Amino acid sequence: MGATEDLARFIVETPAERIPQAVLHEGKRCFINYLSVALYAARDPSLDILLDVFKAEGGVRHASVIGAGTHTNLQNAALANGYLGHLEDYDDTHFPTVIHPSSPTLPAALAVGESIGASGRDVLTASVLGMEGCCRVGMAIHPYHYDEGWHITGTCGVFGAVGAAGRLAGLDTPRMVHALGVAGTQAAGVREVFGSMTKPFHPGRSAQSGILASLLAQRGFTSTTAILEGRRGFAAVYSSKSDLSRVADGIGERWELHMNGLKPYACGVVNHPLIDAMIAMRSRPGVTPQAVERVTAKVHHLVLELVNRQHPQVGLEGKFSYHHSMAVGLVDGSAFPAQYTDAKVKDPVITALRDRINATADPSLSEDQAEVTLTLKDGRSYTERVAHATGAPENPMTDAQLETKFRNLTRDVLPQAQAEELLARLWALEQVADIREIVALTRMRRRTHRK
Amino acid sequence: MGATEDLARFIVETPAERIPQAVLHEGKRCFINYLSVALYAARDPSLDILLDVFKAEGGVRHASVIGAGTHTNLQNAALANGYLGHLEDYDDTHFPTVIHPSSPTLPAALAVGESIGASGRDVLTASVLGMEGCCRVGMAIHPYHYDEGWHITGTCGVFGAVGAAGRLAGLDTPRMVHALGVAGTQAAGVREVFGSMTKPFHPGRSAQSGILASLLAQRGFTSTTAILEGRRGFAAVYSSKSDLSRVADGIGERWELHMNGLKPYACGVVNHPLIDAMIAMRSRPGVTPQAVERVTAKVHHLVLELVNRQHPQVGLEGKFSYHHSMAVGLVDGSAFPAQYTDAKVKDPVITALRDRINATADPSLSEDQAEVTLTLKDGRSYTERVAHATGAPENPMTDAQLETKFRNLTRDVLPQAQAEELLARLWALEQVADIREIVALTRMRRRTHRK
Repeated sequence: MGATEDLARFIVETPAERIPQAVLHEGKRCFINYLSVALYAARDPSLDILLDVFKAEGGVRHASVIGAGTHTNLQNAALANGYLGHLEDYDDTHFPTVIHPSSPTLPAALAVGESIGASGRDVLTASVLGMEGCCRVGMAIHPYHYDEGWHITGTCGVFGAVGAAGRLAGLDTPRMVHALGVAGTQAAGVREVFGSMTKPFHPGRSAQSGILASLLAQRGFTSTTAILEGRRGFAAVYSSKSDLSRVADGIGERWELHMNGLKPYACGVVNHPLIDAMIAMRSRPGVTPQAVERVTAKVHHLVLELVNRQHPQVGLEGKFSYHHSMAVGLVDGSAFPAQYTDAKVKDPVITALRDRINATADPSLSEDQAEVTLTLKDGRSYTERVAHATGAPENPMTDAQLETKFRNLTRDVLPQAQAEELLARLWALEQVADIREIVALTRMRRRTHRK
Repeated sequence: MGATEDLARFIVETPAERIPQAVLHEGKRCFINYLSVALYAARDPSLDILLDVFKAEGGVRHASVIGAGTHTNLQNAALANGYLGHLEDYDDTHFPTVIHPSSPTLPAALAVGESIGASGRDVLTASVLGMEGCCRVGMAIHPYHYDEGWHITGTCGVFGAVGAAGRLAGLDTPRMVHALGVAGTQAAGVREVFGSMTKPFHPGRSAQSGILASLLAQRGFTSTTAILEGRRGFAAVYSSKSDLSRVADGIGERWELHMNGLKPYACGVVNHPLIDAMIAMRSRPGVTPQAVERVTAKVHHLVLELVNRQHPQVGLEGKFSYHHSMAVGLVDGSAFPAQYTDAKVKDPVITALRDRINATADPSLSEDQAEVTLTLKDGRSYTERVAHATGAPENPMTDAQLETKFRNLTRDVLPQAQAEELLARLWALEQVADIREIVALTRMRRRTHRK
């Protein structure tokens, strides 16, 4: 049996009751986190572009676009909801692979689930299994795949989406094998688009590709039966090296959701230890933005690869600037979406501070570590060492912190009582009789645009 | 100016009257060839799978599925029509890259053209420019990209599709740059799926991705402005080596459509010189299938890479079997779709002959060359050398041969008078006032399934 059949069998045949409670709890945290960022993002004017295309192309109204108050077909809903989940770069990160597993997977589960009135338990089960598959395929090709320029959330995301969609649609194992084939050969997304709307488009497109694969395979469409391990299959073509034993090794025993961190900051995850350090600097004597002479940081090499952008021009680019992320950490003490607006990246206090910040790679540091030294004009100097960034598996957001994030992000979007009911129902997702009850609670009375 | 902007400028700004008549003639040959194979393929039951998904997902009815008598939205029409163009592996081949440029590009042009009532001239122009861009992007990464496992028609096809769709939609150059970015980051398709329905799905999905990219960029969706040349862009990520100077070098002066061959046989193009040789063997004294002791062939190495499948189980696999293709060449004297049915690959005369055929690579041979030696049981032996396979640029199908192909493929599909009118109108495509006149002529009275 190859990796593809192993994965198909796991997704199709794992009984819901075999998934540990702690894993289901992480799954519910993913839903709370995902829906909070998607609801917040739904006020972004760029969503109108997608909605306008959907209007031009039409479709049945079987699934909801989160926060938009509109229904569309499964594929379009998944595309939009994947986009919304990742637009603020504020979703989650599977640390061993830097995959953001929720944004491609949960929209696929929600769209299929809503269309058939699936139970909360079934949607949660399908999502957990899909995300597990997505992360495990990623582990088989990480770090080579990402280092070679791929946006691993876009590529591996199709496996999460087809897993969740296919499980909910009731595919049998042979059809799931073909569905994985159709999904895997649609895997796409390069890192060159980072800093534009096309980055969050990736998980949206992955979610859509996964649903399309499931719809086709369900009806007997054929593909390869060895998309993962075939000589010209996914692992061989998308990565210079791979270890496919990681797909099935301990699957169903060790769960990758325990290595998935929810993001405390609305930007590329490699910025996070640097933001932690800058927020801590605020309590040191004499530290103000104007008093800073220079800031130097030792960082993991991916910081220089991914977020080395001293002069971002728009908010989306700010998310990929360690200079900007560190500056807002010191000036505002936070890195919420409000710190990554087009106006904020042009704020003179921020831009002046960005010019004084510089980072160098230190091979002894992992991705969730950093060391920052801040020197004041009067000569005083402070150093902060971050062992594990907030949100990393070793330093996760608590349930209470997640609730705070949820409330902050939904405050201007949903009436408070509705938001609280949504939150409470999500904590008890496995008891929800029909996922449409959850979807109904995400509906805004009137969509307003964020300034 | 980088390769991406060069390409965008070429597609958007080339005046129609600057395209040479000989190039437009090749473009019209592509339409005649593409529509004949798509009409033939539309009787395949597998199209029902796509149509059933379209029905489940819904959509406006702005564009036609060739031969199906149904309308759907632009993206779905392009998906289906790209599938139909390539299902029989009987479309065309740009020899320098082995891209099949018509199947991803023409469906995008037809869908957008039909939705806006574009003229035949505009659809032809957009198609020629799109195919030129598609082939030139391919030349920048060939042969590395294909050798590394990519189905180059799936990947580079997105550039043909977005070029044709965006030109017809009237994108300006800056928006075309972003459209190329959205399209390029969706490029996908691995060779592992060859021999299944997912191979022809590739150009369909490319056509759809190109239209989606055009629809988004038209409305202001942003992407990278350097999808081709960026450090983490298409060329760097999808190929171990590349030469992006080939995108713009001589563009608008040398035209790649002159290197595009229309297929005489309904199978992988590397089989074609072998089929030529076997058909020639039929006129040698004493040659019958039963009299053959053995057949040995010297071939280009891609034959062993792509079509080394001694025992195909279904018709689609037969297209990727040189054993089967050579056997039908000798037994039937042809390699039409009728030679690649599920029944034919199990025909005992064919299977017995397949067992006696063997090929070895000869580095002195190009892809359109072969040398075949056939030995009879009585000891007689014949050798055929093919310098350029039928359909290669040096040995192209004549216009008369193309008309015969068109008539053969449409005979059981369209009433003869309708087929003749369609053919005549396609030869004068630049004088057609509204492409919907052409589309109307592709409509079957009643779709029947091929046995």
